[in-house]
Amino acid sequence: MKGFYGKILEIDLSAATHRETAIPEEDYRKYLGGSGLAAKIFDERGYGKIPPLADEAPLLIFTGILTGYNIPTACKAAFCGKSPATGIWAEAIVGGYWPAAFRTSGYDGIIITGKADKPVYLCFGEGEFTVKDASALWGGDVFATVDKLQAEHGEKAKVAAIGPAGENEVLIAAIMIDGQDARAAGRCGLGALMGSKNLKAIVTVKSDKLPPLHDKEGLAEARKKVLPIIREKAKGLSDFGTAGGVVVVEKLGDLPIRNWAGGSWTEGAAKVSGQAMAEKYFVKHYACFACPIRCGKEMKVPLGPHSGTISHGPEYETIAGFGAMCLNDDPGYIIAANDLCNRLGIDTISGSAVVAFAMELYEHNLIPSDLLGGLKLEWGSGEAILTLIKQVAYRKGLGEYLARGVKQAAKEFGPLAEEFVVESKGLEFAYHDPRAFTSMAIIYATGNRGACHLEGLTYFTESRAVPGSLFGLPDEYDPHGSEGKALLAKTMQDYMVLFNALGLCKFLNRGHVVPANIAEWVSKVTGWDFDQKELLTAGERIFNLKRKINVKLGISRKDDTLPPRLLVHDRQEGNAAGSLPHLGKMLFEYYNLRGWSLEGIPLPETLERLGLA
Amino acid sequence: MKGFYGKILEIDLSAATHRETAIPEEDYRKYLGGSGLAAKIFDERGYGKIPPLADEAPLLIFTGILTGYNIPTACKAAFCGKSPATGIWAEAIVGGYWPAAFRTSGYDGIIITGKADKPVYLCFGEGEFTVKDASALWGGDVFATVDKLQAEHGEKAKVAAIGPAGENEVLIAAIMIDGQDARAAGRCGLGALMGSKNLKAIVTVKSDKLPPLHDKEGLAEARKKVLPIIREKAKGLSDFGTAGGVVVVEKLGDLPIRNWAGGSWTEGAAKVSGQAMAEKYFVKHYACFACPIRCGKEMKVPLGPHSGTISHGPEYETIAGFGAMCLNDDPGYIIAANDLCNRLGIDTISGSAVVAFAMELYEHNLIPSDLLGGLKLEWGSGEAILTLIKQVAYRKGLGEYLARGVKQAAKEFGPLAEEFVVESKGLEFAYHDPRAFTSMAIIYATGNRGACHLEGLTYFTESRAVPGSLFGLPDEYDPHGSEGKALLAKTMQDYMVLFNALGLCKFLNRGHVVPANIAEWVSKVTGWDFDQKELLTAGERIFNLKRKINVKLGISRKDDTLPPRLLVHDRQEGNAAGSLPHLGKMLFEYYNLRGWSLEGIPLPETLERLGLA
Repeated sequence: MKGFYGKILEIDLSAATHRETAIPEEDYRKYLGGSGLAAKIFDERGYGKIPPLADEAPLLIFTGILTGYNIPTACKAAFCGKSPATGIWAEAIVGGYWPAAFRTSGYDGIIITGKADKPVYLCFGEGEFTVKDASALWGGDVFATVDKLQAEHGEKAKVAAIGPAGENEVLIAAIMIDGQDARAAGRCGLGALMGSKNLKAIVTVKSDKLPPLHDKEGLAEARKKVLPIIREKAKGLSDFGTAGGVVVVEKLGDLPIRNWAGGSWTEGAAKVSGQAMAEKYFVKHYACFACPIRCGKEMKVPLGPHSGTISHGPEYETIAGFGAMCLNDDPGYIIAANDLCNRLGIDTISGSAVVAFAMELYEHNLIPSDLLGGLKLEWGSGEAILTLIKQVAYRKGLGEYLARGVKQAAKEFGPLAEEFVVESKGLEFAYHDPRAFTSMAIIYATGNRGACHLEGLTYFTESRAVPGSLFGLPDEYDPHGSEGKALLAKTMQDYMVLFNALGLCKFLNRGHVVPANIAEWVSKVTGWDFDQKELLTAGERIFNLKRKINVKLGISRKDDTLPPRLLVHDRQEGNAAGSLPHLGKMLFEYYNLRGWSLEGIPLPETLERLGLA
Repeated sequence: MKGFYGKILEIDLSAATHRETAIPEEDYRKYLGGSGLAAKIFDERGYGKIPPLADEAPLLIFTGILTGYNIPTACKAAFCGKSPATGIWAEAIVGGYWPAAFRTSGYDGIIITGKADKPVYLCFGEGEFTVKDASALWGGDVFATVDKLQAEHGEKAKVAAIGPAGENEVLIAAIMIDGQDARAAGRCGLGALMGSKNLKAIVTVKSDKLPPLHDKEGLAEARKKVLPIIREKAKGLSDFGTAGGVVVVEKLGDLPIRNWAGGSWTEGAAKVSGQAMAEKYFVKHYACFACPIRCGKEMKVPLGPHSGTISHGPEYETIAGFGAMCLNDDPGYIIAANDLCNRLGIDTISGSAVVAFAMELYEHNLIPSDLLGGLKLEWGSGEAILTLIKQVAYRKGLGEYLARGVKQAAKEFGPLAEEFVVESKGLEFAYHDPRAFTSMAIIYATGNRGACHLEGLTYFTESRAVPGSLFGLPDEYDPHGSEGKALLAKTMQDYMVLFNALGLCKFLNRGHVVPANIAEWVSKVTGWDFDQKELLTAGERIFNLKRKINVKLGISRKDDTLPPRLLVHDRQEGNAAGSLPHLGKMLFEYYNLRGWSLEGIPLPETLERLGLA
């Protein structure tokens, strides 16, 4: 076996036991590791039946079969389970340095079940695995936790940890990686799942150990071939990170403004763009393990409770969320809000979505004054943003409701509140607008973890940043029309799930890496005769497997939809004025292409074809 | 005061008391009587807050200000309240002879609250009102009830009664009019509301009394002017009734087939058409009071429990429901099913919808076998249809669930069952397909009582049976496109609500009667200087008033939608192949035309303009 250890560790925190489980090579070849292999095990064990915050609920943490090797962006791990926020399949993918360190643990993945009777953390290092007391860490923020653990275990110790939000089972809590260099396994509320187990952190002391490699020289050759292309095509990301896209995205009508109701925010976008921020607050670049793109930026925090410290700069999503969504054009508050979320362990997408939602409730006088306690949630108020983030993390005041995410929170504020909810399958929308690029309507409607932008990333292709021809698709689309969108969505979903299974970053796509490149890397690592066709079939298999998991949980066509605001609200200004996605038409085509019934259920012959029957 | 009595009777069945209440002339002029005036009183008294089956819930029965006069089709009464099926505004309009008889009672309407301590019926006659014991009638079917009451009160006694379904509080129970000549106040489950009050029937002995008339000769002139046009334009209805449209409707792709999943049923449609039925089963024509169209047909019942009797022939909706929806091409079973529903007091639209729904559940093995008790619900089975109707009326077996309507029933059969539900706001769709005429998507999505085809009837205009130019609209539409549909829907909704307020039949529309004709009738009856503009403004006012009632009950944009099957399922055969309504686009335009917020709430200035603030 090359490219993987062929075993995982299963840890029962209730029983304080653990055991190794062998995984057959066939499963790696079919599901590739990461969230692909995790989904396979989740499905075959019937984990879906377990309530997500029950003691016996599993948290699955898997590296991809490329993670940790010297392959561009091979830095990712997948955190998976059943989402406490949505009740369906959950995965949150994260880079930084902890995943590559975890790859040296001797296991391809771990499954954590049970609940420790007091706070604990897990420690992997030098082939050893121990469960340690975390009582002294409990209640602490993420940065303090990492500092203490590195003081204890040394600089080579990388840490995945939760903050107070996860401890308090906030349903939009993230699992944070590497502390101050904050990368987040942000979505689906897996921080709450970890917190429910009394599990504060997972420490991995990095070693030189890696699964054996089939063809090291061949791999190095393959890597050299693509590096210059990646560097050239992803240069924008290298310079200003994802934040560099804010102005362009606003111009395209793709930026969500005032909780998805606004169409134009040109001056605001200029003020909070990555370029503007870099000018005033930039400290240095940051790259995840093995990444030639280097999209991370570190920034000075100019205000708020941690003013003066250095923190990871906000990503595009975070700027869209705490900027445009809330009409806040002060980048200082965005940096501070981002820093606060990273410390407290809150997903910045869902975190900013609940804040914008609360601001709209406030505008419509839907929040009882005793719950507000004098808080003024005016659009654009940076102080309100910071206050609500803290309330969410500690479930205080309005935070008790917002901590449940917008869908569940809305139920507390009367039926009109539901009009201001923007989510699919319970997951708050990521910040690209399906009215600007209608393929995103399919992506959000059918995303296996809910309204996910990453399992698709089709706006890259619709906006021509990534030519469709790289994937056998047209290069040009009418961004507001319906034609060709179903095939675009399906193709890119099946491709993007592969990154989560292999341990790669999806920005390789931005770097014009094509399936043939990736198939070559897999072959060089594993020794399999792995080609593009087998790779893309694996992607389709994994996508369908997750759908199958969700179907068992009651998901079908009725759930593949968008909130009314995105289906009915023509913003009438900005570049996407006049555009509303014709979701039904596109979905019909999509289900046919997928080999699903018209009710959105994979047909028996489809499951058969993909080896999922 | 001309054209109305200016008073209503309020009956409290709990206290066994009643009192007269004066209604100011201004309210008649603004709301015109019928369901318009009923809505006005419902709203101002805050009746919406009362649970629909609570003792204190009101049943409002109002004639229109034209009801009972010698005006074409002035035969209607409105039964109104809060729907036990949907929880929102309910109205069911009915013709026949009872409403005109009721007009002679001395009251423009009655409001019944409370619950009698034993079964009773109300008796109006010769200016007298009495509450009588109905113990001997309770449990009897509608026809037997009417026979007994007419034996008691004479041939001039007209009867509105419920059958066992209403007594058993079946949520799709109708209030039936005139017994064997069955006309139905069918929709919204008002039979259950009546049953919950222990109220079996309302008898009205017709007299010559009518509210005084302003200009009898002028009215006769106005009537003469339109009669030939109505007779000419509505000839199809005169010959074969609504049933005469089945074949044409199927050709247009407008017929719902196999619970809205099929696209073509040409041979079946020919077998169950009104023309085919007339050949074999026709007995005689039937006209409601004052109607020159005469769309009713009486037929021999060829099979089933009442084989050999004469019954009212099935309407188009009933044929679509027990025919195409269930794939039953035996007209005998349609006639028998219709007869059974009329006797038991079940709405044939919702009644057939629950049967088709059950057949689809059965196909997908979603019904537990103990609940089936050996029943085989194969598509097309006439025996299954008859059995289920009886089970629904008596809430036996599967009928216990189906009696709740498709939306509530679906909750009992797992999440996939929801895919087979075709309703809006809890009311089963009437049988014209929004994929064939996309304006119907707006009509069903925004209908104040749920998925109602009547408050709009835009398929007449889209199919060119009724020229749009009669109402200042285009004559031609692309039936599958979106253009112009919002204005068409709004215009026709505002016009059609007037018929329910005035006591007229909407088939006047088919007879090419225009708003100016109706305004003239109102002027001749009341002496008001009433023109087309005031008439249409009243229509818009009444439509918005009902929306306002529903908004207070939590209705907004989120509820203005269609089930996934109609938004996503392109049937790929028949005339509407390839067509799916772009509902979001049309709704956006519609809300703007209505002066509603994008969340579907009438704006303050709209309510102000219409005198509803």
